[in-house]
Amino acid sequence: MDSTPGTPRPLELIPSLVILGAARAIEFYTRALDAKVINCFADPKLGGHIVHAELAIGEARFYLSEEARDWHNHAPPSLGGSPVILHLEVLDADAVAARMEAAGATVVYPVRDQFYGERSGRLRDPFGHVWLISQRLKEMSAAEIQAGIDAYEG
Amino acid sequence: MDSTPGTPRPLELIPSLVILGAARAIEFYTRALDAKVINCFADPKLGGHIVHAELAIGEARFYLSEEARDWHNHAPPSLGGSPVILHLEVLDADAVAARMEAAGATVVYPVRDQFYGERSGRLRDPFGHVWLISQRLKEMSAAEIQAGIDAYEG
Repeated sequence: MDSTPGTPRPLELIPSLVILGAARAIEFYTRALDAKVINCFADPKLGGHIVHAELAIGEARFYLSEEARDWHNHAPPSLGGSPVILHLEVLDADAVAARMEAAGATVVYPVRDQFYGERSGRLRDPFGHVWLISQRLKEMSAAEIQAGIDAYEG
Repeated sequence: MDSTPGTPRPLELIPSLVILGAARAIEFYTRALDAKVINCFADPKLGGHIVHAELAIGEARFYLSEEARDWHNHAPPSLGGSPVILHLEVLDADAVAARMEAAGATVVYPVRDQFYGERSGRLRDPFGHVWLISQRLKEMSAAEIQAGIDAYEG
């Protein structure tokens, strides 16, 4: 890391999910992804809405908060989707995807072996956030992956 | 971590940003956030569009790809926003926010001291992704933060 003034030198990059129904979402992530709640703050002045919660799936942390349009916090249903795919690397993609689906997630792309050395699939959770559940099958070089892209026919 | 079958035991949770103009976005993240490109894969069959790139800001990794609506990959302009706030913890929030703004980001909330022990602000990058640039000022207990929320008057 250099010492240029203004260099970020970040300690962490953590996705923070805006959710319509944050309390129910915590139940979902707990059941579907074995998430643990580290902290959860509600605002009694906002009807007890969750204004910030910190969750962890194993070592992987994420935040969430209740939708608050007046504060520029829009949940997926208000936008019709999400432009951020949450790439969760796991040891058993089939098991995790099955557990998510059983808890109410929708399969967008089923889990399958991918040419780039992963076994992965995409699911949309009941709150509209999108997860790529990915299991590493083998290490591949960038050149091998690029060759796979060039040869890929959809 | 328990050994329940299907427990995710994730290795990592990495946000993957769908972007309209991924190649220009890489330039922006390089200039504004000192991001390094670890890998970048383009598909010659798709006009050279970037189908997957891996970037790192210090130790913090993220992915990005070009918008591909036929593949359910919608960028922020197609949705009118993003429901995922990218919380980037840095050592100097003012410097990083100034650098982002100089590179073309829009300030949503200026950097200021927050009651929960952070100095932070929110910026929207030129591609519509939303960053919370956050500097830790002091450690606070959950009870102290909740008391601040209860007392907060906007």
